[in-house]
Amino acid sequence: MAQKPSIPKGTRDFTPLEMARRNYIFDTIREQFRLFGYKQIETPAMENLSTLMGKYGEEGDKLLFKILNSGDFLKNVSDEELAERNTVRLTNKICEKGLRYDLTVPFARFVVQHRNDLQMPFKRFQIQPVWRADRPQKGRYREFYQCDADIVGSDSLLNEVDLISLIDAVFSRLGIRIAIKINNRKVLSGIAEVLDCGDKIVDITVAIDKIDKIGLEGVNAELSEKGITDEAIERLRPILELSGTNEEKIATLAAFLKDSETGMKGIEEMRTVLRLSDAIGHNAQIDADFSLARGLNYYTGTILEVKALDVEIGSITGGGRYDNLTGVFGMPGLSGVGISFGADRIYDVLNQLNLYPEEISSSVKVLFINFGEKEAEAALGYVKALRGAGISAQLYPDAAKMKKQMSLANDEKIPYVAIIGESELADGTVTLKNMATGEQQSVKGGELADHIR
Amino acid sequence: MAQKPSIPKGTRDFTPLEMARRNYIFDTIREQFRLFGYKQIETPAMENLSTLMGKYGEEGDKLLFKILNSGDFLKNVSDEELAERNTVRLTNKICEKGLRYDLTVPFARFVVQHRNDLQMPFKRFQIQPVWRADRPQKGRYREFYQCDADIVGSDSLLNEVDLISLIDAVFSRLGIRIAIKINNRKVLSGIAEVLDCGDKIVDITVAIDKIDKIGLEGVNAELSEKGITDEAIERLRPILELSGTNEEKIATLAAFLKDSETGMKGIEEMRTVLRLSDAIGHNAQIDADFSLARGLNYYTGTILEVKALDVEIGSITGGGRYDNLTGVFGMPGLSGVGISFGADRIYDVLNQLNLYPEEISSSVKVLFINFGEKEAEAALGYVKALRGAGISAQLYPDAAKMKKQMSLANDEKIPYVAIIGESELADGTVTLKNMATGEQQSVKGGELADHIR
Repeated sequence: MAQKPSIPKGTRDFTPLEMARRNYIFDTIREQFRLFGYKQIETPAMENLSTLMGKYGEEGDKLLFKILNSGDFLKNVSDEELAERNTVRLTNKICEKGLRYDLTVPFARFVVQHRNDLQMPFKRFQIQPVWRADRPQKGRYREFYQCDADIVGSDSLLNEVDLISLIDAVFSRLGIRIAIKINNRKVLSGIAEVLDCGDKIVDITVAIDKIDKIGLEGVNAELSEKGITDEAIERLRPILELSGTNEEKIATLAAFLKDSETGMKGIEEMRTVLRLSDAIGHNAQIDADFSLARGLNYYTGTILEVKALDVEIGSITGGGRYDNLTGVFGMPGLSGVGISFGADRIYDVLNQLNLYPEEISSSVKVLFINFGEKEAEAALGYVKALRGAGISAQLYPDAAKMKKQMSLANDEKIPYVAIIGESELADGTVTLKNMATGEQQSVKGGELADHIR
Repeated sequence: MAQKPSIPKGTRDFTPLEMARRNYIFDTIREQFRLFGYKQIETPAMENLSTLMGKYGEEGDKLLFKILNSGDFLKNVSDEELAERNTVRLTNKICEKGLRYDLTVPFARFVVQHRNDLQMPFKRFQIQPVWRADRPQKGRYREFYQCDADIVGSDSLLNEVDLISLIDAVFSRLGIRIAIKINNRKVLSGIAEVLDCGDKIVDITVAIDKIDKIGLEGVNAELSEKGITDEAIERLRPILELSGTNEEKIATLAAFLKDSETGMKGIEEMRTVLRLSDAIGHNAQIDADFSLARGLNYYTGTILEVKALDVEIGSITGGGRYDNLTGVFGMPGLSGVGISFGADRIYDVLNQLNLYPEEISSSVKVLFINFGEKEAEAALGYVKALRGAGISAQLYPDAAKMKKQMSLANDEKIPYVAIIGESELADGTVTLKNMATGEQQSVKGGELADHIR
């Protein structure tokens, strides 16, 4: 019996139009990656579960897609273990492999495994899908692409500057106006240190972030609720009321952090990154934003996020510096900094702002109408010549009704239709119809490519 | 404790050099796909097992990678079922999804699912990895890319001609000399019909294929062993002894098949495909080869395979016509024809023949040496200008020893090293070293891009 076909929830098919748009994004990013000297790697879709487990927290372990061992997957499971129905323990026995959850852990694994062949500092980029067994919802998928760039083996702040410049170049090319929000984990640690409430740093950043919405009193009430002392709340006030230019905000914060060595190190790093970025110039707005925290707890220095200025949407790129990415695989102390472009959200932004260039349409440039054997055979020669000249072309494969053939050209927005009937065959010409203007013109066969160009 | 990292057997990491070479292959194929008017689609890595199971034979079902259901995967399994330890039955209960095994079944599923949005004839291409739980061995992987092109919704032989022309264009660009071997399933059916041994057609094609190696007597002995009658063997002799040009071979076969309607239809199809291919011209050798059978039993017309002429290796591309690809998904009678480029084997051929162009190296064009803060800051401006002009460039991020910085340039075969020291800083120049010739030259800052181009 015939099945009604479907795909797993949270996954997507991409049609030719969607592919053309996605390729436009990936190609734009990839071109900048290359101009900036990042080198591409790819890693397998499947990693050993021992590589993946424990790297994304307990919740992350649950969200890994696990692959059932081939053959007799129960061979190492006793009857007792089976009867226990402990799914977590059973999973470890019947699954050895899982699907890539992000590109960061596989990259760390790659660096350690290939350490003897890699020249440090290593600038790598990687564009591949990842899989997460998240609950699917609008804009969140179980299969999606990540586009990552990282520099490892150097703690120079020039790397942060390079990534900011890269972000600026990519979004300038795409025509998306952005703000790059920058913070530094050392600054956040410094604030917590000065307030003597190191474990509350997340609550504090959340509060800073809300000041525009709920005002100073609201924020203070919330902080109080979280168990932060009145004295600490009072001392935090200048941070909550930060305003002015990046330099002014940083100056205020520097005064606040003057007794925290870590905090002042963070201030110095931010100043350097901002100064060098300004020195080479950028189209993006760059904002020092001390409410930016980012969830991943392996970040140790600069953290950044990119917001689109003209569309309401979450961050479209993010990243930061880490000091010990590869430690868990036996290679401690490797410093690096990386960013990840969110291709799916960038796709949504370009759609909403209608920013796709017209020429990325996936259609061929010229469709030859098929009037029957003799005419088709003549058309084949022209089709080949056009393709050889770098102009995409195709012959309608059947001598179908003219209307049907023309509707392919219309539906697929093919710009030129070429007609070779009896009279064209006799005098070696092609009648070329410009589908945008409706204009028809007789062109000598040998001049077809030049004419279309 | 630190883990010694590894990847699942049969999978691969790709280093920047390998990626550059693979991209060269994929880009070359993709460019021709586009010039020929094929449109790209992508499908999810995971398909429902109901889509995949039963499509690749019993052996194929075993080779599918299955994904363990998330959460309590045992919730629909009774204690009794568990105790039975029937792994096949259990798999169906604990796994709903599997990894893509090829691009053909997902394409069939895609066509049916999107039938209302697709214009027929539909020329699609798809370049994505597939996964098979095969025993890994030299040249056979558990994750590998397929590059498929298909035309569905038209039974015109012009589509076969289009694909042959596409194959010719791709391998011409890659510089690989090839033979395209063509046969037709209707011809094979005709031979079996004439000999009255329809179930022995595979044995017969295998025998035809061996004639060069074991001679007529050896082949006849083998046929006899397979239970083919002496009379049939005698009648088969002219087919076994086929020689001469394509036209001569076909003429001999046509005489043999004259009473088989199916066989003669196959002969006519082959003649048309060969005649039209010759009419538009090709670099490839095209051989009518009646020993070509191809395993997949959904083929119904033309079948073809591509062999590299200068390397001993299996077929590097193959395909054929099918009449009922989508029937199993409830859309009967859709005719199509498709081919699949074997990227991994093409990679091996290019490696063995050393055919990669030099310019595909993955390195940047210019490395700026870092002499310290002031010099680095000046270099950043030049780096940005070069990138803006489409020339890849990077600054070494640390003011490391000159020797270390130069070794990056050497190891990665970076063609130019740019030096900005105190004197260059003073007079606004850059000293540019051509790493191939060792030549050094002082270039005005503003003329750097032009100079490198």
